[in-house]
Amino acid sequence: MQPTGRFITVEGTEGVGKSTNIAFIKALLESSGVEVVLTREPGGTPLAEEIRALLLSPRRELVNDDAEMLLVFAARAQHIDQVIKPALSRGAWVLSDRFTDATFAYQGAGRGISWERIKLLESFVQAGLSPDLTVWLDLDVEVGMERAMARSEPDRFELEKKTFFEKVRAGYQRRCDEDPDRFAVIDASHSLAVVQQEIARALKERLHLA
Amino acid sequence: MQPTGRFITVEGTEGVGKSTNIAFIKALLESSGVEVVLTREPGGTPLAEEIRALLLSPRRELVNDDAEMLLVFAARAQHIDQVIKPALSRGAWVLSDRFTDATFAYQGAGRGISWERIKLLESFVQAGLSPDLTVWLDLDVEVGMERAMARSEPDRFELEKKTFFEKVRAGYQRRCDEDPDRFAVIDASHSLAVVQQEIARALKERLHLA
Ligand SMILES: Nc1ncnc2c1ncn2[C@@H]1O[C@H](COP(=O)(O)OP(=O)(O)OP(=O)(O)O)[C@@H](O)[C@H]1O
Ligand SMILES: Nc1ncnc2c1ncn2[C@@H]1O[C@H](COP(=O)(O)OP(=O)(O)OP(=O)(O)O)[C@@H](O)[C@H]1O
Ligand SMILES: [Mg+2]
Ligand SMILES: [Mg+2]
Repeated sequence: MQPTGRFITVEGTEGVGKSTNIAFIKALLESSGVEVVLTREPGGTPLAEEIRALLLSPRRELVNDDAEMLLVFAARAQHIDQVIKPALSRGAWVLSDRFTDATFAYQGAGRGISWERIKLLESFVQAGLSPDLTVWLDLDVEVGMERAMARSEPDRFELEKKTFFEKVRAGYQRRCDEDPDRFAVIDASHSLAVVQQEIARALKERLHLA
Repeated sequence: MQPTGRFITVEGTEGVGKSTNIAFIKALLESSGVEVVLTREPGGTPLAEEIRALLLSPRRELVNDDAEMLLVFAARAQHIDQVIKPALSRGAWVLSDRFTDATFAYQGAGRGISWERIKLLESFVQAGLSPDLTVWLDLDVEVGMERAMARSEPDRFELEKKTFFEKVRAGYQRRCDEDPDRFAVIDASHSLAVVQQEIARALKERLHLA
């Protein structure tokens, strides 16, 4: 039988510490002896990164909600086919900064697209592929936005108002409630040291790391 | 009641004369006193044109078939929302260089995606919107490829082999067989003068032009 790797995703609203902690998770997994493929969504392949740039760049034109979601799933189809599946099937672990829960949170809860319409595309594109574990860094949206703003110019999503991100956070909560066994919820309001302690504990419990 | 315009699409494989004849159709319609919005797919809005550029540029990376199709439908969702529907609902006629028949022909018959999967996205994005008339310029693929090659550097589709375009042409034939009342099939092997005579006759018959 082919060895099969695990698929781990990291989720949360703006500035909660996804990118910071994903580097920590990678080091932790590697110290247990697994090959880790670090990636992100939207993105992860040259074409998918070009789609990401289209999605994130602020623009005068109104972006239709379905168009936005179809772009996200186009990037995802490419990412799964070219990166995620090949890595998992050679036994590597895939660690992704965002995945489909972000689509439910941002395009679903945020923009207002129904869960049902997103699920239709989810099964169209993923055909059963789902993360083994999702680390959700949960934080007051205002605190996260302040952290993110201190870092760089706002992208098309970061230009949204606080109420948008409140809805996004509630969207993550709904996904977590619907599939609690898959989620590790981390309180991201603590210091980075405490957050990483909690993440390490969750990974050891959920993934039976050496 | 709102006045409602008509939606006309022009289809065919590479170099059959779509762009050439669409200008002729526009002039013909305008001489009958209707406002014509000329557009094309993939494209028709700034974002959709950026998606077109992603689709057409030759690239080293293998492009997943679903990713390609989802990009096409992302552009289409934006095009419908920002251009086609607003034009039709103010009573203008929309004339588009390609539309969803091209997706069945290229991504379906050409790439091998099932009709069923394309129909799922068609109804997801179009929700009943369909052309009133489709002018299909039918031509031996080799003749069309020679015409197109004489004109410019090949794009990512034009780099495909003859057998690919044979399948695409058969895909158009299948779409036509499934919905013959919507299609006007024009033999595009004749001189431009004869082709345009045939197009004018078809439009007058089908659309009861003044
Ligand atoms: N627990 C923490 N306490 C304080 N600051 C933190 C904490 N975690 C991360 N930060 C800081 O917050 C900022 C945002 O972190 P990071 O870029 O990792 O967030 P992100 O979730 O990846 O953001 P984005 O959604 O924009 O990609 C960084 O400057 C980071 O150093
Ligand atoms: N009936 C015809 N006879 C001979 N040449 C023609 C005829 N129709 C068009 N052409 C020429 O063939 C070339 C391709 O035409 P055109 O660009 O309109 O095709 P197209 O279907 O839009 O191509 P593409 O699929 O690449 O967009 C042009 O140089 C055009 O002048
Ligand atoms: Mg980040
Ligand atoms: Mg053309």
